[in-house]
Amino acid sequence: MEYRKIKDQDKDGNIGGDDIESSRGKAHSVSNVDIERTKWKRKSVVTLTLTVLTSSQAILIVWSKRAGKYEYSVTTANFMVETLKCALSLAALARIWRSEGVTEDNRLNTTFDEVIVFPIPAALYLVKNLLQYYIFAYVDAPGYQILKNLNIISTGILYRIILKKKLSEIQWAAFILLCAGCTTAQLKSNSDRVLQTPFQGWVMAIVMALLSGFAGVYTEAIIKKRPTRNINVQNFWLYVFGMIFNAGAILVQDFDAVMNKGFFHGYSFITVLMILNHALSGIAVSMVMKYADNIVKVYSTSVAMLLTAVVSVFLFGFDLSLAFFLGSTVVSVAVYLHSAGKLQR
Amino acid sequence: MEYRKIKDQDKDGNIGGDDIESSRGKAHSVSNVDIERTKWKRKSVVTLTLTVLTSSQAILIVWSKRAGKYEYSVTTANFMVETLKCALSLAALARIWRSEGVTEDNRLNTTFDEVIVFPIPAALYLVKNLLQYYIFAYVDAPGYQILKNLNIISTGILYRIILKKKLSEIQWAAFILLCAGCTTAQLKSNSDRVLQTPFQGWVMAIVMALLSGFAGVYTEAIIKKRPTRNINVQNFWLYVFGMIFNAGAILVQDFDAVMNKGFFHGYSFITVLMILNHALSGIAVSMVMKYADNIVKVYSTSVAMLLTAVVSVFLFGFDLSLAFFLGSTVVSVAVYLHSAGKLQR
Repeated sequence: MEYRKIKDQDKDGNIGGDDIESSRGKAHSVSNVDIERTKWKRKSVVTLTLTVLTSSQAILIVWSKRAGKYEYSVTTANFMVETLKCALSLAALARIWRSEGVTEDNRLNTTFDEVIVFPIPAALYLVKNLLQYYIFAYVDAPGYQILKNLNIISTGILYRIILKKKLSEIQWAAFILLCAGCTTAQLKSNSDRVLQTPFQGWVMAIVMALLSGFAGVYTEAIIKKRPTRNINVQNFWLYVFGMIFNAGAILVQDFDAVMNKGFFHGYSFITVLMILNHALSGIAVSMVMKYADNIVKVYSTSVAMLLTAVVSVFLFGFDLSLAFFLGSTVVSVAVYLHSAGKLQR
Repeated sequence: MEYRKIKDQDKDGNIGGDDIESSRGKAHSVSNVDIERTKWKRKSVVTLTLTVLTSSQAILIVWSKRAGKYEYSVTTANFMVETLKCALSLAALARIWRSEGVTEDNRLNTTFDEVIVFPIPAALYLVKNLLQYYIFAYVDAPGYQILKNLNIISTGILYRIILKKKLSEIQWAAFILLCAGCTTAQLKSNSDRVLQTPFQGWVMAIVMALLSGFAGVYTEAIIKKRPTRNINVQNFWLYVFGMIFNAGAILVQDFDAVMNKGFFHGYSFITVLMILNHALSGIAVSMVMKYADNIVKVYSTSVAMLLTAVVSVFLFGFDLSLAFFLGSTVVSVAVYLHSAGKLQR
């Protein structure tokens, strides 16, 4: 198992080239195995962290809803998330500067060429979030949850087209299963209504899935374009633009509320927890993009969705449906097939 | 694709050894390829026939229900099915005797050793059908339809244990998906009730699945034990015991009705069609056992279940649910994986 994963990494190209740099010693082949093992460990840790953070995220949302209505402005919370991510990236950089000194790869200074692409994912998400207001004219909220699974397919297709990375036939089959399994797990008695979605609703859902998939794949492309560049610098610039876009959203949507009631009005302990969780999840997503890829991210968040449901049974006494069991089975088989499918390449 | 299937057949052992016999000529390797192609064609034809017959079977049942209640005795219809199958096997044999003469492989005479195992599948089905009356104390009819999908898993496991044939890991994954997909396709708004099935209900469902799986796998073992023996002779003996067991069922269940109203009371055109269809399906199942296997049979009948639903939309204006689409997707991927999984062996 370990061996197989390490072998796969070989084909992933030289992500994290700084490690490869340091391996140009004498015991070349031995240290290569060590490096691959380190890479695989890092990949596993970031993936696991993302899964745990994403599933606790949904649980925090349910918890906050149980505690009462949202009293705070969502836009200010989003701004705080971006600010916190920025601060955490800077803190990590400061530690690295102290231990390793400032190098070409970890200095904060950047070129216009490097930085010009960073606002694009943030802009794509903004367009997608705007569309979200309009799609509810055609679909209800549970229907939207179902349609959101189209993201899985769009991410796979764009990953193939834009990053030009190949998935094996078995892995494509696994990806279709992941989408079908997640949707099955979310089936409710009224889910059939989604089939009555009018044509415009479908078009919007597909456009939104493409935008969201494109934003994800584009972020991966940006981050991987400079493999030796420190991830914290890349994150810093991503989040700076996130702060700018979210500041704009505060001005447009919640300017009055913030002026009259203050920036932090309605914040509670759970709001702070949610901001912390979102910030850490965001950083985990970037790490997964750097050390793994969008496909791993999709699997990770899908498994997180199932974990959330299972944990909710214990925390909130939710019932698990037969559809959930069937969907979870299909998702589990998909995860297995994604890994087994690599063997054939 | 063609090549792959032919290669697989190589590993299936020398089923239909009479063909291999005739290939001991000069152009050995060329004629071997031809024989394998013939075998693959025969396997495809019997599988396709079984799929079409099984799906039209369910449609005939819906049609007959729409036309009114069952007016005839089900036991006499079952007896007629066995008799018709027997007659058709004899007719096929008569044609073969005329063209090829009576040989060791196609003579009707048999030994005690050969014939003693033939009543066993019929007896197993009888026990299963008896249990069916008792399980409804614990599960309702739609719940039973869901639980019947356990047959898929039991057939796979018993196929592995009794016939000692291996499935690849991918094929096992495909088999789990087939079970999950079929169940998903059958989900109704009240399917969750099946989760409340009491322990005794689960035990009975599992025992029934094992009996039905065992009967199928055992029939395959009987038929394949003598690969050169003509399938029509094997069928004849299978169906003779079917007639005997069903005659017993008439005596126990419908003796009075048959005595008072006559054997064929309540038969209509559609009853005759259903008997014809059941007889042909039964023969197709035997053919699949001889030239393919139980795994192919399970896939064939699962796909037939989906075909039935699609055809019912056009014939009876049934609605297809989102669960049906998701289940069909999963079943389709399972069929693909079962075939793709062979490559790895």
